[in-house]
Amino acid sequence: MIENFTYQTPTKLYFGKDAIKDLPDVLGRFGKKVLLTYGGGSIKKIGLYDKVKELLKDFCIVELSGIEPNPKYDPSVITGAKLCKEHNIDVILAVGGGSVLDCSKAIAVCAKYDGEGWDILSRKVKATEALPIVDILTLAATGSEYDSGCVISNTALCDKRGYSNSLLYPVASFLDPTYTFSVSKWQTACGTADAINHTLEQFFSEPHSIFDDGVMIAAIKSLMENVKIALKTPDDYSARSELMYVCSWACNGMFANGMKDSGWPMHAIEHALSAFFDITHGAGLAIITPHWMREILSEKTVERFITLGSALFGFEKDLPDLEFANKVIDAFADFFFSIGIPKHLSEVGVKAEAIDAMADHIIEKDLSNRQLYVPLDREAVIRILKASM
Amino acid sequence: MIENFTYQTPTKLYFGKDAIKDLPDVLGRFGKKVLLTYGGGSIKKIGLYDKVKELLKDFCIVELSGIEPNPKYDPSVITGAKLCKEHNIDVILAVGGGSVLDCSKAIAVCAKYDGEGWDILSRKVKATEALPIVDILTLAATGSEYDSGCVISNTALCDKRGYSNSLLYPVASFLDPTYTFSVSKWQTACGTADAINHTLEQFFSEPHSIFDDGVMIAAIKSLMENVKIALKTPDDYSARSELMYVCSWACNGMFANGMKDSGWPMHAIEHALSAFFDITHGAGLAIITPHWMREILSEKTVERFITLGSALFGFEKDLPDLEFANKVIDAFADFFFSIGIPKHLSEVGVKAEAIDAMADHIIEKDLSNRQLYVPLDREAVIRILKASM
Repeated sequence: MIENFTYQTPTKLYFGKDAIKDLPDVLGRFGKKVLLTYGGGSIKKIGLYDKVKELLKDFCIVELSGIEPNPKYDPSVITGAKLCKEHNIDVILAVGGGSVLDCSKAIAVCAKYDGEGWDILSRKVKATEALPIVDILTLAATGSEYDSGCVISNTALCDKRGYSNSLLYPVASFLDPTYTFSVSKWQTACGTADAINHTLEQFFSEPHSIFDDGVMIAAIKSLMENVKIALKTPDDYSARSELMYVCSWACNGMFANGMKDSGWPMHAIEHALSAFFDITHGAGLAIITPHWMREILSEKTVERFITLGSALFGFEKDLPDLEFANKVIDAFADFFFSIGIPKHLSEVGVKAEAIDAMADHIIEKDLSNRQLYVPLDREAVIRILKASM
Repeated sequence: MIENFTYQTPTKLYFGKDAIKDLPDVLGRFGKKVLLTYGGGSIKKIGLYDKVKELLKDFCIVELSGIEPNPKYDPSVITGAKLCKEHNIDVILAVGGGSVLDCSKAIAVCAKYDGEGWDILSRKVKATEALPIVDILTLAATGSEYDSGCVISNTALCDKRGYSNSLLYPVASFLDPTYTFSVSKWQTACGTADAINHTLEQFFSEPHSIFDDGVMIAAIKSLMENVKIALKTPDDYSARSELMYVCSWACNGMFANGMKDSGWPMHAIEHALSAFFDITHGAGLAIITPHWMREILSEKTVERFITLGSALFGFEKDLPDLEFANKVIDAFADFFFSIGIPKHLSEVGVKAEAIDAMADHIIEKDLSNRQLYVPLDREAVIRILKASM
């Protein structure tokens, strides 16, 4: 069954080795003044920075570097928007992973607004305009290169929140898997865990269809198989290319077309974890996933686990339903551990004494506004966090 | 492995019951002068014509009706383009199945060209402009609502050929499954066979990836299961919705992103069949599919059949590879027969005496320009056609 939906992803993907040869043509359509955004300098180490500068020698480039993981409204978004206004920027070129892309999206929309940018990102004010965004991706993870959303942290408010606007689909995304060869084992694992979680957030919803189920299972299977290869052989083009491609699809809504929005509860919980402790998003998600699954397991949801268990892990259905589902949940926990992600939040720096405050934050700022596949109250959130510690 | 590709599908899908309530808003963005195109009047029988006229009471509507199956350059495309020029049309609204949509795409591009439209459709002249196209789909089949291609027959030249241009993606497609409740068993079966064949054309290519394979298998599985339900219970919303949704994805290239273009050989062969004998496209495809499969079966291709056999039909791998593959091919033949499509081209009006002429046509006008997964020479095409008779 496919329920009512609307869907559009206008971004053009340029995928493969040397795909960025088309970059000058694509950027040139918008003008010559480019804001080049990037993070901590890894793009210099892999030679991508020089390559981009060489390709864009006829353009006027203003740079914003040092964009942090869990990108911050202050200073990154504020500074970027200011640069765009001062230099009358035509187009933003984001080079990096999800954090750089997300920050660039926030800049794109704040650059076209004269007031306080946070009013837009916190949805007090509706944005009607944004600068065009082009990106060169260097990390397979968030799918920001193929969706219209961004997640920005406001340290002053201890807040991390998602913002989405159809103005923010990149006009073009350049995906060259070779740029991900040098991604560390930790980031490779966490990026993949992020995309697996994106798929699971959508898989746990209704109604089901043969097609949606099959697409999502194919995505998770591909991510699980290929991350193992990439961790062992970081320059395996085949594995890196499939990881990069699947991550792009995992967050743009296509997987769940015709399903009710699941409410993405694990993301609501993880956003608090990284707002409070600045942990790596994919690690936080991987750690809480099995505990969220355990919390929502019931007669209503058990069929979802059975479908996953047979399709992903090849389990024979030789146990009662709920036992079988627990075996599937164990398999997910084991998988995330096998790719190098610890099993406990305490191991990534989360402190148990913040659980109550985080639970309040999760319920008030996030879950209270969402329609969930399986509702979670404050006690349920606390149970998940405690079990994850 | 995902090979280099570019991909973009900018069309916005409005899917579900009463989706067309947004039609006036969408059309209004382009202007008030609409060319309304449709076929033989089935849209009047199901009340859709009246609904559209009511929704568009503030628009100026010019009509082109009577668009035929296997739409013809003369008169339909020529007449439509002339109407657009005479009435200074802002946007085309196509209401119908693949034939109406394809014809409307050809009109959209010919309306913006002052010379002979066939020069564009036969690619002698490059089109740089087209009218925007919006459609309301009434048949799950070709996927024209979500791609940039059209197939037009030129009776005078005994030619039927595909034309594709990124200008021809519909800006919006309205997909309400209830409009397909009244589609005949024959058209339901042939439309589904068309989409299964689109998927198979892409599945038989290289390189492979877990994700692409899984997506295509999910599509075929969904089409096979849901067409059985729709044939038995024509107003089963769940089955009709999934057929409609999957058909839209099956032809827009997403399934084969990162694979080499397979060359779509079955379509090259079928286009000659319907150019010579005006047969139903999906029926022609379904009949030749097993015989094309038998022709290309080899050590190189056998893995594709094994993958399909296990995933679609649940066959245990208890036979030698080539025997197993033949069992899979038999299963496809049986499936198409089970949904009401005959096994022989002679049963749909194709005459054996035309085989030589069709083979010449297929090789000269079509296959000689294509890079095929498994090359087919004139003798191979004749073998396929003879076996299909």
